[in-house]
Amino acid sequence: MKPLDALGELMDQQVLVRLKNGMEIRGTLKAFDIHINLVLDNAEFKDNEVEKKLKKIFLRGDMILFVC
Amino acid sequence: MKPLDALGELMDQQVLVRLKNGMEIRGTLKAFDIHINLVLDNAEFKDNEVEKKLKKIFLRGDMILFVC
Amino acid sequence: MKPLDALGELMDQQVLVRLKNGMEIRGTLKAFDIHINLVLDNAEFKDNEVEKKLKKIFLRGDMILFVC
Amino acid sequence: MKPLDALGELMDQQVLVRLKNGMEIRGTLKAFDIHINLVLDNAEFKDNEVEKKLKKIFLRGDMILFVC
Amino acid sequence: MKPLDALGELMDQQVLVRLKNGMEIRGTLKAFDIHINLVLDNAEFKDNEVEKKLKKIFLRGDMILFVC
Amino acid sequence: MKPLDALGELMDQQVLVRLKNGMEIRGTLKAFDIHINLVLDNAEFKDNEVEKKLKKIFLRGDMILFVC
Amino acid sequence: MKPLDALGELMDQQVLVRLKNGMEIRGTLKAFDIHINLVLDNAEFKDNEVEKKLKKIFLRGDMILFVC
Repeated sequence: MKPLDALGELMDQQVLVRLKNGMEIRGTLKAFDIHINLVLDNAEFKDNEVEKKLKKIFLRGDMILFVC
Repeated sequence: MKPLDALGELMDQQVLVRLKNGMEIRGTLKAFDIHINLVLDNAEFKDNEVEKKLKKIFLRGDMILFVC
Repeated sequence: MKPLDALGELMDQQVLVRLKNGMEIRGTLKAFDIHINLVLDNAEFKDNEVEKKLKKIFLRGDMILFVC
Repeated sequence: MKPLDALGELMDQQVLVRLKNGMEIRGTLKAFDIHINLVLDNAEFKDNEVEKKLKKIFLRGDMILFVC
Repeated sequence: MKPLDALGELMDQQVLVRLKNGMEIRGTLKAFDIHINLVLDNAEFKDNEVEKKLKKIFLRGDMILFVC
Repeated sequence: MKPLDALGELMDQQVLVRLKNGMEIRGTLKAFDIHINLVLDNAEFKDNEVEKKLKKIFLRGDMILFVC
Repeated sequence: MKPLDALGELMDQQVLVRLKNGMEIRGTLKAFDIHINLVLDNAEFKDNEVEKKLKKIFLRGDMILFVC
């Protein structure tokens, strides 16, 4: 198994993405590529103590720390 | 679906771009490429507390944090 | 022997991963690639003094400092 | 349209370039490439509160934040 | 001679690796590649004033400052 | 015209190179490549308030901010 | 002439290498490659105010600021 296969197994599931700047975003994984660019649906994250909800978010891969 | 397809679906729509330095830019997505270089029309952003408006802006992809 | 062979020898074993931001994550190595993207099962790490456990975690390779 | 086409439309026009370190440089766009290396003629920028003027400047692309 | 040949001459010898974050790791060089990913056996380093010993360590190349 | 052509026009001429760390180096441009690695002859720069002169200096391209 | 040719002319000569973190290392240039990885013989540098001497040092290219 390769690491990207693990992302493939998480498709259409609820994931938690931790960014390098400490932000955490929860949502349903809808797409990923070899750069670890991600698309999440129904994303939720705290932004300066304010809870935000987004129908869809595109995350640039080079800011990803981990996905679980 | 691949992540860039999600950007494709946002073409000609109003998007919010968050940069790695915290800046947020709103505008109409007119172009993107694999580096996530973006072009927005009618862009608006706050710059040192001053609201700025631009007919067109080219954003270098490596500064993008997310697009929604 | 090449460095990635050493990671291959650690497959399915308990490893400690130190990230560039100082975080340490322990778990069973389940996958790696040439970018040093890693997948750990039964991962454990301290997050702001709180011990966290995860069934599976995908770590982006460019944040890895060392694996042992 | 691709993002670099938007730069092409700005050729020989007055542009504002914001760098990642906050510097802003105004000038006439004379050249660009896929790395977003830029050449501006009659460039003007503030440098430690001193206004500077340059007949020609070559800007390395990886320091560009946006062009408008 | 190319720089990687110098690493080749250090194979199976005791080396000191200085990382970009200032850490120093001593051990026997067992593997390297073009990214300067390294594997050391019987590695020793100080970690927050605590001396640590590891039978084997994989170091990601982009954190290496020098090897001697 | 491409940006590197502008560097070509500066060959054998006196240039000012600003680095990303703020250093400025003056000298005669003797060579450049696609990474913007540069060679300057008769280079002069201030180093901790001390003026230094060098017959020849090789500058790694990824530290260049601009050349004029 | 290309910039790497200037490094070639410095082979087997005494050089001063300035790193991006401010460190300076003097020694005889014995090898270089396109990444500006360098090997110096009889290297000397100050490390926390202590003068160090090394028979041979491998420097990773991405930390080089300049060579003269």
